[in-house]
Amino acid sequence: MAPHGDKSDAAEETMVAEAEKRPISTILIVMAMQSEALPVVNKLNLSEDLESVFPKGVPWVRYRGFYKDLNINLVWPGKDSSLGVDCVGTVPASLVTYASIQALQPDLIINAGTAGGLKAKGACIGDAYVASDVAFCDRRIPIPVFDLYGLGLRQAFSTPNLQKELNLKVGKLSTGDSLHMSTQDEASMVANDAVVKDMEAAAVAYVADLLKVPSVFLKVVIDIKDGEETTAEESLQSFAALERAVTQVIDFINGKCLSDL
Amino acid sequence: MAPHGDKSDAAEETMVAEAEKRPISTILIVMAMQSEALPVVNKLNLSEDLESVFPKGVPWVRYRGFYKDLNINLVWPGKDSSLGVDCVGTVPASLVTYASIQALQPDLIINAGTAGGLKAKGACIGDAYVASDVAFCDRRIPIPVFDLYGLGLRQAFSTPNLQKELNLKVGKLSTGDSLHMSTQDEASMVANDAVVKDMEAAAVAYVADLLKVPSVFLKVVIDIKDGEETTAEESLQSFAALERAVTQVIDFINGKCLSDL
Repeated sequence: MAPHGDKSDAAEETMVAEAEKRPISTILIVMAMQSEALPVVNKLNLSEDLESVFPKGVPWVRYRGFYKDLNINLVWPGKDSSLGVDCVGTVPASLVTYASIQALQPDLIINAGTAGGLKAKGACIGDAYVASDVAFCDRRIPIPVFDLYGLGLRQAFSTPNLQKELNLKVGKLSTGDSLHMSTQDEASMVANDAVVKDMEAAAVAYVADLLKVPSVFLKVVIDIKDGEETTAEESLQSFAALERAVTQVIDFINGKCLSDL
Repeated sequence: MAPHGDKSDAAEETMVAEAEKRPISTILIVMAMQSEALPVVNKLNLSEDLESVFPKGVPWVRYRGFYKDLNINLVWPGKDSSLGVDCVGTVPASLVTYASIQALQPDLIINAGTAGGLKAKGACIGDAYVASDVAFCDRRIPIPVFDLYGLGLRQAFSTPNLQKELNLKVGKLSTGDSLHMSTQDEASMVANDAVVKDMEAAAVAYVADLLKVPSVFLKVVIDIKDGEETTAEESLQSFAALERAVTQVIDFINGKCLSDL
């Protein structure tokens, strides 16, 4: 008799294969900052959900709406209630992703935002990247196997047609909770062969993997880690480029199945 | 007419004050490693919850049982399903804390575990500390206000009677996702005036603060960051000291209100 585990795994694989052939319906867009989210909210004509699906007291914000054939949910961890700044970083991103998956059961997660890029690896301000895989660059646990756990390398959902059709750059993404990386974080990013660095993706990937939701990572370069400082105009251009990239990806996804991506 | 917000705040404060006068009933103990959790599970005679309150697929484990007048729940983020190691660090700790608060509505959270200590600040292997406050040491965001957000300094619930009665050391706690701190992490820990360093507390504090659950942090020193390497025997002694400290704290809490702690 086959062990129970094998049977469940086979059933799960069949369910996943079937889901990949159904048109994508519910999308969860996870963003970290209001300035990243609002241009997308406006472009896709989403409205803030006033009857929150989240627990009382949390600052998490959900915008929702139908766009073409898609049920779009854009979530953002909101502003810190004491300090008033965006709740950036891995902990709030993982929590809002977890709670949103539980409440909304999305077919696909898009973690979209701005990121730092490495000029030495070909990144320029305004470039839109789809991550091939994501990993942490600031979790050093130098004990065998724990080192791999700390790295937390995860493949993004494969999207060869989307990448080709929209002419997006593809590269590896490193995540860390510091905007200014330590020497060790930089070394880890280089060891990961990463071209872009953000503050949330590897945590979103961790949660999506736990709960078995396919996820893609769309990052627009807003500053160059190994180059000149970004000007205010370049920042604004990057937010506009992010809105265009998210809209293009949503337009591409509309009417397609996961296996078409 | 008073704004709605003030009315809610006043009602909330009254509820909190009343809760502080009721005997503590439901305790949530959050631990990061199986080797920390099992001695406590055995000592308090807890059983693994086989009908999980958590979503299908997550590795999170809950042990439960009644001990004296307390409903005890000990949760642990479990083993990584691919790598088989304990899911240490801030992201799994924040997720399991969030999901446990939602499912169990505890009166008090005890985040207990082993930690590194600074000899220069008086820490010795086996010392049990109650944290006065917790902060992150690896989230550097050098933008005004975001720097404070990254630090994430939070006061623990005040427990002067518990500290005095059990003769526990009291000190500041720094949290970071790396076992081996970078030079910048160490500088942040010194700037925080911290004496112990763990990998979860500031994330547990963040979630507890979001959902308004009082939380205490009990950490036993297992290695000295500015001293000799820990021997295997010292490690075992530290796990035993952790079990004793948790049991003493639980015994002290039994029959008391939050305001008695």
